[in-house]
Amino acid sequence: MVRMPTDLETTSVDLEKTSVAVLGLGAMGQALAAALLRAGHPTTVWNRSAGKGDELVAQGAVRAATAGEAVRVAELVVVCVVDYDAAGTILESAADDLPGRVLVNLTSDTPERSRTTAAWANDRGIDYLDGAIMVPITMIGQPEALIFYSGPQAAYDKHAIALKALGGRPAYLGEDQGLAAVYDLALLDFFYGSITGMVHAFALAGADGVRATDLAPYLNTIAAILPPLAAGAARDIDAGSYPGEEANLGMMATAVDHILEWAEHRGLDVSTVRPIKDVYDKSVARGHAADSWTSTIEVVRGG
Amino acid sequence: MVRMPTDLETTSVDLEKTSVAVLGLGAMGQALAAALLRAGHPTTVWNRSAGKGDELVAQGAVRAATAGEAVRVAELVVVCVVDYDAAGTILESAADDLPGRVLVNLTSDTPERSRTTAAWANDRGIDYLDGAIMVPITMIGQPEALIFYSGPQAAYDKHAIALKALGGRPAYLGEDQGLAAVYDLALLDFFYGSITGMVHAFALAGADGVRATDLAPYLNTIAAILPPLAAGAARDIDAGSYPGEEANLGMMATAVDHILEWAEHRGLDVSTVRPIKDVYDKSVARGHAADSWTSTIEVVRGG
Repeated sequence: MVRMPTDLETTSVDLEKTSVAVLGLGAMGQALAAALLRAGHPTTVWNRSAGKGDELVAQGAVRAATAGEAVRVAELVVVCVVDYDAAGTILESAADDLPGRVLVNLTSDTPERSRTTAAWANDRGIDYLDGAIMVPITMIGQPEALIFYSGPQAAYDKHAIALKALGGRPAYLGEDQGLAAVYDLALLDFFYGSITGMVHAFALAGADGVRATDLAPYLNTIAAILPPLAAGAARDIDAGSYPGEEANLGMMATAVDHILEWAEHRGLDVSTVRPIKDVYDKSVARGHAADSWTSTIEVVRGG
Repeated sequence: MVRMPTDLETTSVDLEKTSVAVLGLGAMGQALAAALLRAGHPTTVWNRSAGKGDELVAQGAVRAATAGEAVRVAELVVVCVVDYDAAGTILESAADDLPGRVLVNLTSDTPERSRTTAAWANDRGIDYLDGAIMVPITMIGQPEALIFYSGPQAAYDKHAIALKALGGRPAYLGEDQGLAAVYDLALLDFFYGSITGMVHAFALAGADGVRATDLAPYLNTIAAILPPLAAGAARDIDAGSYPGEEANLGMMATAVDHILEWAEHRGLDVSTVRPIKDVYDKSVARGHAADSWTSTIEVVRGG
């Protein structure tokens, strides 16, 4: 039988592995540093305020007194803080030491801020990757943890092994540093629409005395059809054609009307449902009554 | 080796099986009748206008000249037409023949119309089940086809085998005939929220040049987390307590702000996204900033 190394053994650092600095030791930064240590990367940690990182030091991390000091001993620099303002302050303080290294910013924000930071890095000869973590803290370092990256392909390839230690499902999206944030926001857009519909569904059923725990298993039937629907919708949207043989927008607008009618009858807030009907009506008015619901993307695009 | 019966052999009717009348031969009615024939049920079919059902007759169905004639030879009567007005007209025409039989109405509408029809049936001594078909036509008769039923348990139990022939995942919800429509509308409510978020996500990513087919596989990551989220949310909602340790509403409102900021920057229609933020803000204003997003159900319930 092959003996598997234990967690303790794998936390011993391997000097042939990429050395990494982790700037910012909030809950996410700590999880990232711990994952790097588990994968054997020499890891230096720094936090703006003191009192954080003792556990990481016990696991083999080296604590730096300044961000610049952490950066100087690293090939790869990972920053993950509350927002881009905080990230900017930290990066400015280490700006003299960053050139020649690869900087990965996992702070979450809009594509514009990613691109502004990319321009700042580019002016200083810093290889800049922007990333977006798509999983909760508890999944960091796990095989199924999805993290988006965008920026120079060479910089990504150079540190692919270390980046895979952060999350086992890294996804490189392209040279444009804004792409990670674009994908991040798009996934969140889908997520918030879905959970808003979910809460409304619980309220609607609850108004007729149905317990949420009785309804929940059936919501899974809907969740299960979303991936094949997304694949088909994507093909329609890329082709700019919206065949409506299976379920047309006119029929679907009627179904939304049934939801609205009953939800209002029960006195529910329909502020999140009525705009769905309005978008469908606008698409119907543009001649898409016999087409698919995917035709509504033309309304969403505006203009 | 056990020899499996062919499709042709299983369409021969079995006189010991429940005899069924199918009223309404639209695409869904035809699929229901075909599924009953495949399962060996003596099946009589009727449609308001002529020219439909030839294929069913070729498969062994008997065509009736009137709805009443179809009902008279059946123990179980299935009606599935465009709306409850159409169903009402048909049922009135067969009202003298329906008492003593079980009537299953699979026409889709609001719970109120189901309950009104139930009261009508009750006054005439007709055992009435209301149902809702949750799958597309092509899945009728398949093992995974979910169909909701509500009404007298004895009537459901009596015809459970025939009803299972229509869809292999029948779900009996309770005595109140309105429940099938309540569950139906709740699932649709979740569905429309989800696909609205999906279309918006495609539009948001598309505005930055991302092809929908490149984004779609990542949307599956979100779809996969919805079932466990629904289970947890249901427990919160039934308990009336909304612990926000993992992700609190204040943080989530900020994320929705990022989506809104970027979508508006790209000129997208945000009419379906802004109300999500408004509901979050209302829940935050009620003191739920540190609680879970599930606390928003109190806003949705109104009052």
